[in-house]
Amino acid sequence: MSHLHELAFLSRQAALELATLSAESRNQALTCMASTLLRNKDQVFEANREDLRRAEESGLAAPLLKRLRFDDEKLHQAVQGLEELAKLEDPLGRTTLARELMPGLNLYRVSCPIGVIGIIFESRPDALIQITSLALKSGNAVILKGGSEAMETNRALYLCLRESAVSCGIPEHFASLLSSREDVAAMLKEDELIDLIIPRGSRSFVRYIMDNSRIPVLGHADGLCHVYVDRDADLPMAENVTVDSKTQNVSVCNAAETLLVHRDIAASFLPSVASKLRDKNVRLLGDAETGKIIRCEMATEEDWSTEYLDWTLSIRIVPDLDAAIRHINQYGSHHTDAIITENPDHAEHFMQGVDSSGVYWNCSTRFADGFAYGFGAEVGIATGKIHARGPMGLEGLTSYKYRLIGHGQTMTEVKLGHLSYTHRDLKGSME
Amino acid sequence: MSHLHELAFLSRQAALELATLSAESRNQALTCMASTLLRNKDQVFEANREDLRRAEESGLAAPLLKRLRFDDEKLHQAVQGLEELAKLEDPLGRTTLARELMPGLNLYRVSCPIGVIGIIFESRPDALIQITSLALKSGNAVILKGGSEAMETNRALYLCLRESAVSCGIPEHFASLLSSREDVAAMLKEDELIDLIIPRGSRSFVRYIMDNSRIPVLGHADGLCHVYVDRDADLPMAENVTVDSKTQNVSVCNAAETLLVHRDIAASFLPSVASKLRDKNVRLLGDAETGKIIRCEMATEEDWSTEYLDWTLSIRIVPDLDAAIRHINQYGSHHTDAIITENPDHAEHFMQGVDSSGVYWNCSTRFADGFAYGFGAEVGIATGKIHARGPMGLEGLTSYKYRLIGHGQTMTEVKLGHLSYTHRDLKGSME
Repeated sequence: MSHLHELAFLSRQAALELATLSAESRNQALTCMASTLLRNKDQVFEANREDLRRAEESGLAAPLLKRLRFDDEKLHQAVQGLEELAKLEDPLGRTTLARELMPGLNLYRVSCPIGVIGIIFESRPDALIQITSLALKSGNAVILKGGSEAMETNRALYLCLRESAVSCGIPEHFASLLSSREDVAAMLKEDELIDLIIPRGSRSFVRYIMDNSRIPVLGHADGLCHVYVDRDADLPMAENVTVDSKTQNVSVCNAAETLLVHRDIAASFLPSVASKLRDKNVRLLGDAETGKIIRCEMATEEDWSTEYLDWTLSIRIVPDLDAAIRHINQYGSHHTDAIITENPDHAEHFMQGVDSSGVYWNCSTRFADGFAYGFGAEVGIATGKIHARGPMGLEGLTSYKYRLIGHGQTMTEVKLGHLSYTHRDLKGSME
Repeated sequence: MSHLHELAFLSRQAALELATLSAESRNQALTCMASTLLRNKDQVFEANREDLRRAEESGLAAPLLKRLRFDDEKLHQAVQGLEELAKLEDPLGRTTLARELMPGLNLYRVSCPIGVIGIIFESRPDALIQITSLALKSGNAVILKGGSEAMETNRALYLCLRESAVSCGIPEHFASLLSSREDVAAMLKEDELIDLIIPRGSRSFVRYIMDNSRIPVLGHADGLCHVYVDRDADLPMAENVTVDSKTQNVSVCNAAETLLVHRDIAASFLPSVASKLRDKNVRLLGDAETGKIIRCEMATEEDWSTEYLDWTLSIRIVPDLDAAIRHINQYGSHHTDAIITENPDHAEHFMQGVDSSGVYWNCSTRFADGFAYGFGAEVGIATGKIHARGPMGLEGLTSYKYRLIGHGQTMTEVKLGHLSYTHRDLKGSME
């Protein structure tokens, strides 16, 4: 039996046990994790200094070094996150359907954990705490693999979390930390024991995972978000939202990459928004028609499907709302797209027609994340349409069971006509 | 561009259009399908006779011939199914979360179609009608591949459904019918255009699909269902439920394959249930302890993981409830498992601990299907835990979008502290 197979087996055993633990014990462990982290912070900081030293030596870029750093501020955010998570409503045991099938035979659909989840995440040590705690709150066992740059920090954090969980009666294998790529490859083979893989990473990495495993994968490919400024837009609002969506943080998946503008207002809107964007040093690429109105480089066909994650914006003028919707559905990544308009019919048509996980009316695309949505945090943003879509918080980490409770009813009696279905929805939860 | 790629592209275009159609137009098309089927029944019956003739010539077994037959009774069931489906509540546009993120910025999670679904189904022509109509009701485009034995019938039915849909303004490519295995293989490559594959078929077929596509797959592997008779069971009820779960229809996935019996009641329970099962010609296999109480063949380790789909039942005596739960989680297929007990704590412990999509208390495993659950019908039974679990009806064919509706809010204002989150859940739907 390979090391990884054994680990996956132990994770499954832990998951079966986690599914039967009370909300109190799971929440208690979260609170305990917070205090253990505070108590052991010097060890964690020491480990992080080691990672940072190694990263600096290897010439890691400044923004990545910043993500790698785990300091007092990050620690306190993490501790606060754990305490808030402990207070959130239990995602398990929620009855989402209650129906009398026939007198004395009642069906309940009740939320439960998914089971064992493999999560591969980037070099941000606070992600380890977020993911592990969301998994515990939702009763799932996790097998984690973090970025190798954060190896020492991840290890120190993981040991803290495991120690506190075990001291609260949580099974030891509620979370496991892998250290090599070979382990990840081996994990992908365990489709009988692992229920879900969440790869956080590049599009090619997500596709590699999909090509090498039978385990369902929830991931997000790209974040190619659009702002469409409608003919009936409030132009000062459109300017603000465009500038915010593009520039508030250019390196995140919910930043806008393409601005679509209705032809009728292009001449009045583009010059002023272009000047604000240039003030922030945004490089502008436009189609031919845009080039007649503002100074910009020429956008190519490839630009419409490019996620810049940078200080660059492509701009296209469209003849009408339907053309904007078609552009987004053809070139977008089904992440988040916004319309700016004062016309409710146009907004409704846009939100109905655009095939994306977030369809926004008069607000910035930057709101597309689990914290903004009030989910506590997120384990990822899903751009597929199976299972969870959009920011994936606690609810995305649950499945459900059908409980059917009767008094000895049989199908034979149904077929003989002695029993017949009523299918009456019951109010409230299990009764 | 390959034929299949073009078809997938047209299906996606149709899906985008279907997502914007009103419930009235989708329902009207369903009603129209019912009348078109009645009007064209002679052509359909003629096609079915052709399939039956071919199947008889090739020596198809009697039960399969029965499944293949499409007669007046099947037609009327199908017509009734369509009319009932048209009356069911719309699965689209349902608001499942409504939350104020901050004053004037409201988030709504609203159900929407998945998009394009590829469904491969067995040689039962009524399945084509069920699947196509469920897909249309839920606004999805489907690419269908039926069993080759039913080729002529499927083609005749498909033409009826398409004609009526198109006459009601539904886009022509709302449904497409494939005719070859090569087409199926080509379909699996279209992961940019197809959102979900539902393979109805053998375990090895489902695994073949998973190994050859990046498209998410929802399927069910096996139906290895258990009945556990607890120490505190009402024994006459336990007998009835055991006999029904095993014998009411042996060839279906929700039939029981293994009976687990608590040691303390084995001597009083087994002889009478064995005699009833033998009256129905059920072959009994038991572990050593069972063999001391009733006459039976010896079960091997392999029996515990065998789905007989036949007049055979394996029997094992367990020392306690936890042993029963462990047996089910180890050998079962996470489909449907029942406990017979008068003890509510035992029932709760069982329903919590057993990791299956259906956990039943005092009723037959045979109730595990979409019709019994009141879902109208089902496109399949999912034994995985991602997306839908258990009988998958209309709701399983939907995804959701987040609509965020504001008044120009930006993330910049949040970061500057000019705006802050309230995260107040709103009552009711979109307001």
